[in-house]
Amino acid sequence: MAISVVTLGRLPKYLRILKKMQLENINNVSSTSIAKELGFNPIQVRKDLACVSKTDGKPGVGFVVNDLINDIEEFLNINKSKDIIVIGAGRLGQALMNYSGFENKIRVVRAFDVDKKKCDNKKIFLMSGLKNYVKKNKISVAIITVPREAAQVVCDKLIDCGIKVIWNFAPINLKVPENIRIKNEDLSASLAILLNSY
Amino acid sequence: MAISVVTLGRLPKYLRILKKMQLENINNVSSTSIAKELGFNPIQVRKDLACVSKTDGKPGVGFVVNDLINDIEEFLNINKSKDIIVIGAGRLGQALMNYSGFENKIRVVRAFDVDKKKCDNKKIFLMSGLKNYVKKNKISVAIITVPREAAQVVCDKLIDCGIKVIWNFAPINLKVPENIRIKNEDLSASLAILLNSY
Repeated sequence: MAISVVTLGRLPKYLRILKKMQLENINNVSSTSIAKELGFNPIQVRKDLACVSKTDGKPGVGFVVNDLINDIEEFLNINKSKDIIVIGAGRLGQALMNYSGFENKIRVVRAFDVDKKKCDNKKIFLMSGLKNYVKKNKISVAIITVPREAAQVVCDKLIDCGIKVIWNFAPINLKVPENIRIKNEDLSASLAILLNSY
Repeated sequence: MAISVVTLGRLPKYLRILKKMQLENINNVSSTSIAKELGFNPIQVRKDLACVSKTDGKPGVGFVVNDLINDIEEFLNINKSKDIIVIGAGRLGQALMNYSGFENKIRVVRAFDVDKKKCDNKKIFLMSGLKNYVKKNKISVAIITVPREAAQVVCDKLIDCGIKVIWNFAPINLKVPENIRIKNEDLSASLAILLNSY
């Protein structure tokens, strides 16, 4: 089913709330209480959940928490584990490697860096091993956290290695062929929007 | 003039290109060449620049680079310097403190943390000094990079100190009163969108 990017962005938030409920042994939940928890519009939440859930929420009972988690994970394609790599093991790269907010089936498995001193050969490795690792482990998603000057070269190299999806945190708009999916995560733009939108 | 959030997000990208040109002593630039450089639609760029520029681009000459930079900075409210603080001096907090991509008038001046060992009393200070610093220096914008569990408490404390704008990187939707502007930067949602949008 087609779904908007805005809805897609809300699904991980539902998932987070639902998993918290799962831990608390809550079996059923209504869209209204999810909406309340997140401060969202209840009608919006009901529509979103109708899009992704295989069953309808029952009046007075709501959704089965476990089922709803499975449905959202399946919808988001994160019901299978997904290994991701990071290029650039500076502060941001290491922050993303250790970020606790990603869904638990998404694992940032390895970082690569040109700086030998940063490599521990456990989670951080030299760039020279990149191609071999990507091919062998069929990695398709990479995060770029290298300095601006190095980012396009790194990007080209990733594509050459077979990476199909790139999440770029370097402050530069990277150019990629049409078959590559890229998101230039512009923190400066995010901040500008925050400082200027009322 | 009213402007969409999407346009707002593009302005820092124009600024970045223009500042690069300024360094290269390029005096004039057309909207077409900015569009080409960024891989944007030239009509879009022309419209965006018309919104923010005080002068029209001259046919065959284009915009004066220096003027356009000033106009965009004024529009984005970053022609005056803006000091920002970070709460949580972990990897992400330190990455943001040292991020080179923010416009140069936006400075992340200080981080606060509960962990004494992280404090160098140069750029990283104990949380106990937060309120005093915020009041004295009239800080209005703060970034939250503490763990999820601590985020709401930190958020409440920031508001109590007089912070008006909050950029939250902790993986939780923070609740704030209506007069506070907040952006919950959900990296998990960003990744979900990237992995699922075609």
